Amino acid sequence: MDMALEIAATLVAQVQKPTLAFLIGGMVLAAMGSKLEVPEPVYKFIVLVLLLKVGLSAGISVREADLWALAVPALLAALLGVVIVLIGGRALAAFRGVSRMDAMATAGLFGAVSASTLAAGMVMLDAEGIAYEGFIGALYPFMDIAALVTAIVLARMSAARRLAAAPAGGGVATVAMGTGTGGDGAMVKGILTDTLKSPAISALLLGLGIGLLGRPESVYDSFYEPLFRGLLSILMLIMGIEAWQRLGEMRKVAHAYVAYGIAAPLLHGALGFGAGLLAHELTGFSAGGVVLLAVMAASSSDISGPPTLRGALPEANPSAYVGTSTGLGTPVAILSIPLWIALADLVIGV
Amino acid sequence: MDMALEIAATLVAQVQKPTLAFLIGGMVLAAMGSKLEVPEPVYKFIVLVLLLKVGLSAGISVREADLWALAVPALLAALLGVVIVLIGGRALAAFRGVSRMDAMATAGLFGAVSASTLAAGMVMLDAEGIAYEGFIGALYPFMDIAALVTAIVLARMSAARRLAAAPAGGGVATVAMGTGTGGDGAMVKGILTDTLKSPAISALLLGLGIGLLGRPESVYDSFYEPLFRGLLSILMLIMGIEAWQRLGEMRKVAHAYVAYGIAAPLLHGALGFGAGLLAHELTGFSAGGVVLLAVMAASSSDISGPPTLRGALPEANPSAYVGTSTGLGTPVAILSIPLWIALADLVIGV
Amino acid sequence: MDMALEIAATLVAQVQKPTLAFLIGGMVLAAMGSKLEVPEPVYKFIVLVLLLKVGLSAGISVREADLWALAVPALLAALLGVVIVLIGGRALAAFRGVSRMDAMATAGLFGAVSASTLAAGMVMLDAEGIAYEGFIGALYPFMDIAALVTAIVLARMSAARRLAAAPAGGGVATVAMGTGTGGDGAMVKGILTDTLKSPAISALLLGLGIGLLGRPESVYDSFYEPLFRGLLSILMLIMGIEAWQRLGEMRKVAHAYVAYGIAAPLLHGALGFGAGLLAHELTGFSAGGVVLLAVMAASSSDISGPPTLRGALPEANPSAYVGTSTGLGTPVAILSIPLWIALADLVIGV
Repeated sequence: MDMALEIAATLVAQVQKPTLAFLIGGMVLAAMGSKLEVPEPVYKFIVLVLLLKVGLSAGISVREADLWALAVPALLAALLGVVIVLIGGRALAAFRGVSRMDAMATAGLFGAVSASTLAAGMVMLDAEGIAYEGFIGALYPFMDIAALVTAIVLARMSAARRLAAAPAGGGVATVAMGTGTGGDGAMVKGILTDTLKSPAISALLLGLGIGLLGRPESVYDSFYEPLFRGLLSILMLIMGIEAWQRLGEMRKVAHAYVAYGIAAPLLHGALGFGAGLLAHELTGFSAGGVVLLAVMAASSSDISGPPTLRGALPEANPSAYVGTSTGLGTPVAILSIPLWIALADLVIGV
Repeated sequence: MDMALEIAATLVAQVQKPTLAFLIGGMVLAAMGSKLEVPEPVYKFIVLVLLLKVGLSAGISVREADLWALAVPALLAALLGVVIVLIGGRALAAFRGVSRMDAMATAGLFGAVSASTLAAGMVMLDAEGIAYEGFIGALYPFMDIAALVTAIVLARMSAARRLAAAPAGGGVATVAMGTGTGGDGAMVKGILTDTLKSPAISALLLGLGIGLLGRPESVYDSFYEPLFRGLLSILMLIMGIEAWQRLGEMRKVAHAYVAYGIAAPLLHGALGFGAGLLAHELTGFSAGGVVLLAVMAASSSDISGPPTLRGALPEANPSAYVGTSTGLGTPVAILSIPLWIALADLVIGV
Repeated sequence: MDMALEIAATLVAQVQKPTLAFLIGGMVLAAMGSKLEVPEPVYKFIVLVLLLKVGLSAGISVREADLWALAVPALLAALLGVVIVLIGGRALAAFRGVSRMDAMATAGLFGAVSASTLAAGMVMLDAEGIAYEGFIGALYPFMDIAALVTAIVLARMSAARRLAAAPAGGGVATVAMGTGTGGDGAMVKGILTDTLKSPAISALLLGLGIGLLGRPESVYDSFYEPLFRGLLSILMLIMGIEAWQRLGEMRKVAHAYVAYGIAAPLLHGALGFGAGLLAHELTGFSAGGVVLLAVMAASSSDISGPPTLRGALPEANPSAYVGTSTGLGTPVAILSIPLWIALADLVIGV
């Protein structure tokens, strides 16, 4: 009972904090039909600054990081990306009205990572004074790329298999399978390259690289770090507006997506939290780090994922996967951040 | 004589301050035919940050405000909005070549409030170290909405009345009036909703709401407050350029608009100053607050007003009302801010 | 040997500093085919803030500057602009496949100044704690305008002369020459006006004017100065991406452009360095000032130059002059800044 009250009080306090307040404010504005819009170039600029900030900070930290302490959560992050896609793809495809292609695309987005959600988690931990490893941002690409590659490879392979299984004959099927297998390596490489070239991953890697090889501390301290929190508040506003507008698209797709969009972030967050606890035992991964691994797992990609999937899986229906992710997955993931903070406090102590 | 000299010295000092210097600089650039342009998305971003800042700061202050101290200036602000429209509509329509519809639209804009002018007033008071009530931003919607609703309702009613007075016959007239009256409530509600949904008012209300219900102090202190002054300097530059460009449109409209555009901000500012003095007597409203009420009354809407009027009064000529407001009203209102500061110093002492 | 090692160590340290790190990072991203883009309005906003910052800071300093100390480097800056164009125009036109018009346009761009390169030089000197005259930004228009006017006048005169020398007959030639001469004054005036109206020069002059006549210190200290370094890092990223993309265009033009694009910034920088040394002897011009005069001379115009030239010399091929300047001249100029710092340290001591 006390615990429930404590969690409730934490939730109320968190909702009052700028990050969630601006997200909810954006949703309320959109629900009221406000004509407030934030121009696209402003959105892109804010995302660029956030990604560079997360990358720079990770790069600076990786310089002095214990490689073992970094390798364990990185491996776990990649594993989480794969596992989330495997579970999600199967679960969604089991429902009526959900094509295998759409299921994989949706699971891919939910396995991939949202920089804004991760940034929101960082700002909320900072506000609570809870420490986390500086290299956390370096885990992002591991989970993100693992999830997108898994989803696209599985979707393409299943499409090839279905083609092969068509009545035209076994000989052709074998040939097609052969080509499929032969092409698999090239396909994985193509997806990897495409993902690395995507704006979000390349901005993050640029920050990582400059943080690792350069000495960007002066500009980090005078610009990226101080502007981070304020720009995030505007980004949360944009995401709240966008989430509400996308919710409308959910009416056009199967109910399974609604259930998935609400339940998946919580389930994935719990998986991430569990993986974080394992790293905590193995390498002394911090409580803040456990929270952020949960947040990354709970988040679904909003910037680089959709265009990557649209390019790789043109047969999938964007209303389904983008609607589920932006309309439900992202707000649920951001709103559940306080849950992981409260849980970490209970289990590890922050 | 001494007083005149003192005012002149204050004016010169104010013109050298960034706010007026950038406004005048923008006008000079435009007059010289400079090709300098600030992109539209940058303009929208700056206005969004200013409105959120004004709203957040007001919301935070309203939390601890004495409701009586707030209610008196709020009521006066709404009254000022109505009175300015009544005076302006009549005065302008008395001139030849000014249609009743255009007169009402222009008076509506001059009754409504400019966030940039208000922000300029705040920054100039801050620079002088003159205190004002934190909740001032909360007065904005009272004056703004009162003015726009009054102008649109009166313009629509007068259009309906003229239609009714047409020779077609009394019976039809009664029906039309009936419909008019029946529709009045709906019309007012429609205008209210439209105004609340407009980008400027919803950004301001969002800031107010988050300031009132949330705890945005951290992001306010680290982002909105420090960036306010610098972003305002760029906004003043944009407004100076825009004012000069709009001045050209004044050649196409009746001379009455030129006289109104120059005289109205001074008259409205004096009305606002008087109302502020009344609040000063009744509730101890500060000298800085009196100045800002005068500035709000003197200002004319530049962001949300024009599209609201264009939607509600499509028969009115935008060259007339937007030209008068942006080309003359806004620069005169901003340039006269030092006047209200000097006056407040003389009358109340700052 | 020790000197070479010392210079090498300085270069490595400089490449790690944010300014060069972001430039190189942008080139690497573009080389890898990254889809990262910074929206055009963001680019324009950053350039506006940088130009206002450089202008404001120069204007504030000119107020208290010794006019003689300012006049000498200003005269040298204008001379450098003319000399660079005279050398470059001749050198390039001597190569096969380079038209006289294209040679002049390219030399004009390399004589004009890049605000971003100058800003990069300032930030790198600041990071080293090397002082320079505050009025340096005021030298920019002297070199920039001198170079553009020289290039355009010479190109137009040579085109008129060729027309006059055509076999059609001496009488026509005389008339044409007459018109040409009569039109020269008007042409120079036209180019001057166009250059002053260009976005870059007018933003710089606006900053200069407000710095000189106004009192913008408060907004300068709270906004322009603190944001300068961070915004420059994003601008360097944009310029790195742009440089790499423009390099591709170099394949379509004569090899002479490649040689010129690499050698000219170094030669012009050396000329600027020499002129700076002269000013150092004559008026005690600082070591940091000498570096920045070299940087200005080495830089080639990236913002206002190209459209000015496109308007004035429509016959010239933009692939040649913009490609050479943006693809080679600008990155070489920025990357060679540490060279001038090291040289100033050796020759004058910083």
